[in-house]
Amino acid sequence: MATAKRDTYTPESLLTVAVRVFNERGYDGTSMEHLSRAAGISKSSIYHHVAGKEELLRRAVSRALDGLFGILDEPGAVRGRAIERVEYVTRRTVEVLMAELPYVTLLLRVRGNTKAERWALERRREFDQRVADLMKAAAADGDLRTDVDIRLATRLLFGMVNSLVEWYRPQTAQGGGGTDGEQLAETVVRLAFDGLRTSR
Amino acid sequence: MATAKRDTYTPESLLTVAVRVFNERGYDGTSMEHLSRAAGISKSSIYHHVAGKEELLRRAVSRALDGLFGILDEPGAVRGRAIERVEYVTRRTVEVLMAELPYVTLLLRVRGNTKAERWALERRREFDQRVADLMKAAAADGDLRTDVDIRLATRLLFGMVNSLVEWYRPQTAQGGGGTDGEQLAETVVRLAFDGLRTSR
Repeated sequence: MATAKRDTYTPESLLTVAVRVFNERGYDGTSMEHLSRAAGISKSSIYHHVAGKEELLRRAVSRALDGLFGILDEPGAVRGRAIERVEYVTRRTVEVLMAELPYVTLLLRVRGNTKAERWALERRREFDQRVADLMKAAAADGDLRTDVDIRLATRLLFGMVNSLVEWYRPQTAQGGGGTDGEQLAETVVRLAFDGLRTSR
Repeated sequence: MATAKRDTYTPESLLTVAVRVFNERGYDGTSMEHLSRAAGISKSSIYHHVAGKEELLRRAVSRALDGLFGILDEPGAVRGRAIERVEYVTRRTVEVLMAELPYVTLLLRVRGNTKAERWALERRREFDQRVADLMKAAAADGDLRTDVDIRLATRLLFGMVNSLVEWYRPQTAQGGGGTDGEQLAETVVRLAFDGLRTSR
């Protein structure tokens, strides 16, 4: 007698599948049917784990947001001169982005068409605001150049950091592809704060 | 007697509509039916102007690419020290991106699922390569710091520049929103080449 594929998912492993499908098809373009097919289990099995698509989105972006907000409580982000703290936060943001790549990718692509998406956007803006405040503090200390607008510079800094989700791919066990993560984080910080030119 | 809406489009004004729809729905997700509805004319009227969706994509991304490749032939890009040329190209890339915003947005979002899309990606890579070559020349002149990988730095530089399509909105006639274009281009160049920190 033929039996349906046994549901061996945990909420965690189901989330991994859901995030992959969301990133491939877009959250808006993903139906429970798509998730069911990708996971190889029935829709009712999925509902056994989660209330629906929105819950999966909330869990996925929470993982990205927890990683990002966690940075702001680390000693390097709360102690010392503002410029050192903002460099620390930049470096760690790159590291979290690489460690939680599919989750942060999803967070950055959220469009705001549903309540869960708007909540994610709101939290993301909150994080950006916290970093913008740090940048302002560094400017007030006289450690940032005065001929650029700080709000604009913060946007460009995030633009550079967030662009990683478009091209960064982790190094495989075979050693193929990918860029060394530590080098990448360091390059972002050096480029943004010291610039690419040799000192004149 | 009811008459169909008269087709008053030129190939140029039809392109404007198509690019807006491509950017909203994604090129893959746009059908001739969507274009027909957005333009308010029949599909056969559209076929009177263009052979199909692929031709509209080709024309739209050509406009972006012509703008970008045009920069490389300007005096500021061909004469002088490599570092000055690469700064010039960066500044002008930001300006072309702002001037041709919907067209460059489309170019940057192309995924490569069809022949026309793959052609666009190929041309885009060619432009990136030309700028990467300039960066290498500037490094060989000793004008770029040696503790960052040039290929990586070029990617991050483009990541920052290209992120503009996600948040830059032109100033309206009412003066609302938007950032002054010249200031924006200058901030990108200062951030990337001189860094945000005050000199130490």
